[in-house]
Amino acid sequence: MSEKSKTEHLKPLRIGIAGLGTVGAALILMLEKNSQQIYRKHGRKIEVVAISARSRSRDRGFDISPYEWHDDPVALAKIPNIDLFVELIGGEDGPALDAVKAALSSGKSVVTANKALLAKHGVELATLAENSGTDLGFEAAVAGGIPIIKTLREGLGAASITRIYGILNGTCNYILSRMGNEEISFEKCLKDAQALGYAEADPEFDVEGFDSAHKLAILSSLCFQTKISSEQVFVEGITAITQADIQVADDLGYAIKLLGISQRSNDGIEQRVHPTLVPKSSAISRVDDVLNAIVIETDHIAQLMLSGPGAGGDATAASVLADILDIARGQNISPLGMPTSELAEYQRAPMQSHKGGYYIRLNVCDVPGALAAITTRLGENGISLKSVIQRPDLDDNDQASASSSQVVNTRTLILITQDIVESRLRKALNQVADDGHTKGAPQVIRIEEF
Amino acid sequence: MSEKSKTEHLKPLRIGIAGLGTVGAALILMLEKNSQQIYRKHGRKIEVVAISARSRSRDRGFDISPYEWHDDPVALAKIPNIDLFVELIGGEDGPALDAVKAALSSGKSVVTANKALLAKHGVELATLAENSGTDLGFEAAVAGGIPIIKTLREGLGAASITRIYGILNGTCNYILSRMGNEEISFEKCLKDAQALGYAEADPEFDVEGFDSAHKLAILSSLCFQTKISSEQVFVEGITAITQADIQVADDLGYAIKLLGISQRSNDGIEQRVHPTLVPKSSAISRVDDVLNAIVIETDHIAQLMLSGPGAGGDATAASVLADILDIARGQNISPLGMPTSELAEYQRAPMQSHKGGYYIRLNVCDVPGALAAITTRLGENGISLKSVIQRPDLDDNDQASASSSQVVNTRTLILITQDIVESRLRKALNQVADDGHTKGAPQVIRIEEF
Repeated sequence: MSEKSKTEHLKPLRIGIAGLGTVGAALILMLEKNSQQIYRKHGRKIEVVAISARSRSRDRGFDISPYEWHDDPVALAKIPNIDLFVELIGGEDGPALDAVKAALSSGKSVVTANKALLAKHGVELATLAENSGTDLGFEAAVAGGIPIIKTLREGLGAASITRIYGILNGTCNYILSRMGNEEISFEKCLKDAQALGYAEADPEFDVEGFDSAHKLAILSSLCFQTKISSEQVFVEGITAITQADIQVADDLGYAIKLLGISQRSNDGIEQRVHPTLVPKSSAISRVDDVLNAIVIETDHIAQLMLSGPGAGGDATAASVLADILDIARGQNISPLGMPTSELAEYQRAPMQSHKGGYYIRLNVCDVPGALAAITTRLGENGISLKSVIQRPDLDDNDQASASSSQVVNTRTLILITQDIVESRLRKALNQVADDGHTKGAPQVIRIEEF
Repeated sequence: MSEKSKTEHLKPLRIGIAGLGTVGAALILMLEKNSQQIYRKHGRKIEVVAISARSRSRDRGFDISPYEWHDDPVALAKIPNIDLFVELIGGEDGPALDAVKAALSSGKSVVTANKALLAKHGVELATLAENSGTDLGFEAAVAGGIPIIKTLREGLGAASITRIYGILNGTCNYILSRMGNEEISFEKCLKDAQALGYAEADPEFDVEGFDSAHKLAILSSLCFQTKISSEQVFVEGITAITQADIQVADDLGYAIKLLGISQRSNDGIEQRVHPTLVPKSSAISRVDDVLNAIVIETDHIAQLMLSGPGAGGDATAASVLADILDIARGQNISPLGMPTSELAEYQRAPMQSHKGGYYIRLNVCDVPGALAAITTRLGENGISLKSVIQRPDLDDNDQASASSSQVVNTRTLILITQDIVESRLRKALNQVADDGHTKGAPQVIRIEEF
């Protein structure tokens, strides 16, 4: 700590905030309430100088009059009397991108909670920050109140990460938890999630797994020192999960979670988001409701798990503020953990080469010999089965959950495979379909034996 | 990031390491293996210059010849050609303390894994570091591979912590987990823990809770901005926990864990380490084996939980290295999160004023009216009971676990109270003892409804 830096730290850090939704409003209230405490702890004041939002007149629970108002966030990002720009506008392009670029280019550090922006432009923005000698913080962009970015960037020494996985979307976890605990349908759970404000009116981005994919791509880059590559994440959502799936999984000792998983394989790095059967004995299987959780596996640490709130104004604002305070005390770290020039290109390991266990639910025609024909096909493809389940109650359940392709003369068959390469499984299932003993597409859910 | 700091960071950070046990050896191997990766990521080399240990000849799995050898760690701490001193000697005083003081006084930063040293001298050493413009890192001192110090110091923004609790000792958690899962006695579990190297030949420091108390005192200071006060932690170990306690707790929906808990109350701050009944639905109840876990509750975040390895050479060395890398990149933070001059004196909230639920196991004389007399006494003291359990099998179990004061004509009575102030409970239990209907001291275990 040189005398120079000590003196520098006595000047207030002046910030501008664009976007005054739940997180922005919570951040301003937090800064107003804790200004003395922050000064005592960090020896530096954080001053909100200017703000911007779409509507000036909306009541946000605080008085906007002390702050310089800007209708245009890009203009705000460039004003000379701020040191740091907080982007809480949202959206992967448009004003969020323009404003962040403007801030970094004019020598201001940036803190953002915008995962879509980072997932798409993270490397470009990190490079811009490095070249302009500014900081770029995005703790709040992944898993809201959980300090996962800091942990990955600073907390693990030189540990080499072998795998990271997590529950990265609270909406999906809420839906799957309630489906599991209360035996109600996906549709009913989604409706409740929307009523509670956990899910958007258009829930596709959450329930189809895209939100998790953005977050996973950011984590993956930090873990494996590759460029962020969110468009190369394999993504499957949770809309096809039925009560039958959840009940059979439960009987077999598994819960179903939407996981984001990124791991090294021989072919590159697998990035995948999909519903996953996880053993009920695993810690992640017990993370319920809107909570998020992330597990890091390294060569030095078997499993480090962080769990907590993945969203919410206060929790997310606390992470934004943690970034602001890191920058206020003059941290000196590359946004993506190492200079972007040192990041490797992302090399995608194709899902077809993924190896693991599978849960398969088939609608099998109720004719003699169908089961034998199916299991023979699987055997021919080198697929060993751990469990075969055929129960009358599943047929009822399946019909109750109203699959439109359901006809009376099929029965539900559930198969649990030993580990097998995905391409072989898909080939076998195509043959089974061609044989004509099944109706509709099979339900395939990957299994992870954490 | 000024040009000045960029240039400074190109000079290697030269370190000296004192103490070459499991952690020290793992650290050196980690630095040797990852030197290129560290340079790529942080733009700075970490060079081990000098080492010190009690025995020069012992085989530690690496070649000591490249390193300057010192028999005396205090002499090593003072040599001019190191920038940072790593203390892995252990012990709250003696050479560890002398060497750390010598290093800080001569302008070198220090990284240590020594919880006993920090618990006793943390404020003094942090002050010394602040005055000499050096850094003091101690991530590895609490919960080995879990980045809890970083999270508390940097990860939570201005969040105000209301409570922190955790499983801070892997030995105790191993013993209690096995007692719960396999229905074997404390003594047998302890013996196995010793055979596996999880427990010392003299296990008192672990099983009596002192190790947890040291760690809790450090966490407590970071959470509540008070001076570290480990001698004012209320401490109760796990040696009195019987199979009967674990079985009844299980029947009632609880697990028994040795927790360290620190929380604000009206009277000050409660710091306590004791066996605790925790609901089996709580995340912490499911942290088994040698794992550690810490839960942070703040005004902004309901619960943030970190779980992972609390010990082990590699995990602990990874935390030591994370501290070294933070210092290498020129972090600028007070060791205890804020200048020591700003820390408040610790104000102890006495256990007698603790309010909570209690599990009470009594040996009741098998005479008519005994139960009525006991419950009347409790009622007179304003104590409401949630459950009263008297079962023949518990008497068998209790005798099997060989309590020496056990006589044939007593029966085991277990009471679960509603929340009550501890002083009232103790008064009531004294009266019950005076009434002569019980034999021996009651077993009292606190309940937390997390």
